Amino acid sequence: MRREASYVTATTTPLPTAVEPDVDLGPATGLTCRECGASFPLGARYACEECFGPLEVAYDYRGVTRASIEAGPRNIWRYRGLLPVPSTVTEVPNLEPGFTKLVRADNLAAALGMRRLWVKDDSGNPTHSFKDRVVGVALAAARELGFQVLACPSTGNLANAVAAAAARAGIRSVVMVPSDLEQQKIVTSAVYGGTLVAVEGTYDDVNRLASEIAGEEEDWAFVNVNVRPYYAEGSKTLGYEVAEQLGWRLPEQLVVPIASGSQLTKIDKGFRELVHLGLVDDAPYKVFGAQATGCSPVAQAWKAGHDVVRPVKPDTIAKSLAIGNPADGPYVLDVCRRTGGAVEDVTDAEVVEGIRLLARTEGIFAETAGGVTVATLRKLLASGQLDPAAETVVFNTGDGLKTLDAVSPVVGPTATIPASLEAFRKAVSA
Amino acid sequence: MRREASYVTATTTPLPTAVEPDVDLGPATGLTCRECGASFPLGARYACEECFGPLEVAYDYRGVTRASIEAGPRNIWRYRGLLPVPSTVTEVPNLEPGFTKLVRADNLAAALGMRRLWVKDDSGNPTHSFKDRVVGVALAAARELGFQVLACPSTGNLANAVAAAAARAGIRSVVMVPSDLEQQKIVTSAVYGGTLVAVEGTYDDVNRLASEIAGEEEDWAFVNVNVRPYYAEGSKTLGYEVAEQLGWRLPEQLVVPIASGSQLTKIDKGFRELVHLGLVDDAPYKVFGAQATGCSPVAQAWKAGHDVVRPVKPDTIAKSLAIGNPADGPYVLDVCRRTGGAVEDVTDAEVVEGIRLLARTEGIFAETAGGVTVATLRKLLASGQLDPAAETVVFNTGDGLKTLDAVSPVVGPTATIPASLEAFRKAVSA
Repeated sequence: MRREASYVTATTTPLPTAVEPDVDLGPATGLTCRECGASFPLGARYACEECFGPLEVAYDYRGVTRASIEAGPRNIWRYRGLLPVPSTVTEVPNLEPGFTKLVRADNLAAALGMRRLWVKDDSGNPTHSFKDRVVGVALAAARELGFQVLACPSTGNLANAVAAAAARAGIRSVVMVPSDLEQQKIVTSAVYGGTLVAVEGTYDDVNRLASEIAGEEEDWAFVNVNVRPYYAEGSKTLGYEVAEQLGWRLPEQLVVPIASGSQLTKIDKGFRELVHLGLVDDAPYKVFGAQATGCSPVAQAWKAGHDVVRPVKPDTIAKSLAIGNPADGPYVLDVCRRTGGAVEDVTDAEVVEGIRLLARTEGIFAETAGGVTVATLRKLLASGQLDPAAETVVFNTGDGLKTLDAVSPVVGPTATIPASLEAFRKAVSA
Repeated sequence: MRREASYVTATTTPLPTAVEPDVDLGPATGLTCRECGASFPLGARYACEECFGPLEVAYDYRGVTRASIEAGPRNIWRYRGLLPVPSTVTEVPNLEPGFTKLVRADNLAAALGMRRLWVKDDSGNPTHSFKDRVVGVALAAARELGFQVLACPSTGNLANAVAAAAARAGIRSVVMVPSDLEQQKIVTSAVYGGTLVAVEGTYDDVNRLASEIAGEEEDWAFVNVNVRPYYAEGSKTLGYEVAEQLGWRLPEQLVVPIASGSQLTKIDKGFRELVHLGLVDDAPYKVFGAQATGCSPVAQAWKAGHDVVRPVKPDTIAKSLAIGNPADGPYVLDVCRRTGGAVEDVTDAEVVEGIRLLARTEGIFAETAGGVTVATLRKLLASGQLDPAAETVVFNTGDGLKTLDAVSPVVGPTATIPASLEAFRKAVSA
């Protein structure tokens, strides 16, 4: 159905102009169906009323220049002219996510035989994952659209980000998690003091219940459900930042982790917007997607040459990527095909090695998702799919402190000794 | 002895000029004894050869202006003209710590009945504590002084910072920890791949062994032992940043946690340097010190009106502050007396409440040290020692993800329910 519908898009007028009165979402003008191209005014819609396709924010950008961006704050709001948020977004207390470091990774490059490699390190965000970006945009849009409560189903990073963002914004949060989640992961969200509901069941059960509630509670914004079109746009800022931090140009290759697939497609969208607006030169780039083998529906579809992504039951240590039925999977396939990239997957053992390699070479302790990306980078180089001479950016989207269990079995003391100089000398060569 | 010696200081020439040839430590000209004023050339000294007093870096600052600082990178190296580091420090790969957020904390201020409150949030550093600052300076100085290995005894944040910084710099690290440290805390340093030695004994045993090794291994820099004078200077950047981020002015009140006491004295030193250099107006400020009651030797001395600090055996959840014999304790007393501040301590239960209060109001999840500071702020307000109308900065020096055990017993789900809308409605009011 997706493929058929996409032909329709080309024949419809893409830019809707119907805007609900009194809604200031900056340059956003409406919502457009990604499949059939139907247009809707800005509001709490997320599925097309015609074909049930996903809705995308449509824009009318004006007056965005390199200088106007560079004059902005050093967080995602410097790109507010390209996001569906009120023009006054910086005046409301928020966590000010983004503008995380783009780290030049010469040691890792040398270890892998590459010429120029960068790590976009989103562990530097306020709650230490890229989710602060998408939640920041969702919260700003949700307030403008009249929502009173910020909510989500989650098993980790998203729950942290929603609970923290709502606390600082002074609005109520309702976070829903599976009741068998480890106490440690519950603590990191519960500490922010919102409502945290433990639901007996799997994450799918929690997700389903959240959708039911979203249908009933008109003033609750479930960031990844009923305000998802706005939320997803937050990931464009990863693309904007990489381009700006490279000195307003695009890298030649990207390696991006895939959960729902949204992040990868939005980084690509961000790049294309910058080209369209004349903020960077139009240069070819290849987008590579990274999955853990234990949850690799997109990689499997890629390797089989399919257009559709067959759902899987996740079984991997990379839990933040463990979405068995990725909503944007088909769009990921499109992007990787269009740009000449690929989708690859790596085993859990390779993920752990990826985390260790990045930590040992660059002093960056990534969560499992970052391990997936680094391990995939290595695998793509080994298979010759990725060019070691081309400038490459890999994305670390979270912090190792949140997934200690992944490396705990394999790293430990070099030696355990009595407290004497002699014992030290015996154990450690100077 | 300390008191007597400090009279001597006033009668000696304070600025030494003897510099070892070929050593470029920027504006640093030598080392001066804090007690007797004796001068020594720059090198791996840390105790006065005359009186065993601690050595401080002496400087000859030239050409440092607001503009020259503002033109620098957005990390501690923008202040390299005020630090004992090579002028080329930015050209060598490093973690680029610092320039963390100064968060305007209106919600917390409202909760406490204050007029203007800021949180200097050092959890945003690369390994999520202020230790990245001091280790960054120690590493830069140690390389210039010819050391080949970066080492430390530690139980947590410092070990993380040393192992990560050495990994990125491509030099060897040797980190020593007590062998009964929790596996999770070992993982967060071991992952960076240096040598990690678990020593059977207490932290004091580890520390003693480290000093022994430092006396034997000439090319090993123990950051907090034989290159401590340089290391300690890194904390000045907290003061510089607060002043710059306030628009080049000083706040009226500060609340700073006390472990060794070094950080508090260096923030004060940073402020005085800025005044001396004409970078900020000379305005009065009060410095308040914060300790956990279970390790509060400085607070006890303060309350008893003593000049000396009597060592204690630490027993508190605020482990990153648990130094029973704080080297800079007497200097902390001096600073708090001179500025009209105070030193106060809070119970472990108050520490936990401090963590929760900051998280709920500002979305910042602090480690126990941050809880100590916030709880002390509250206590000082209640006792009338701190003025609620005066502009105040509190320091959060670490990240809650590293001390989950502190809050784990007291935060949890609001409700645990079956996966049904009805159960949700019963448990959670909309």
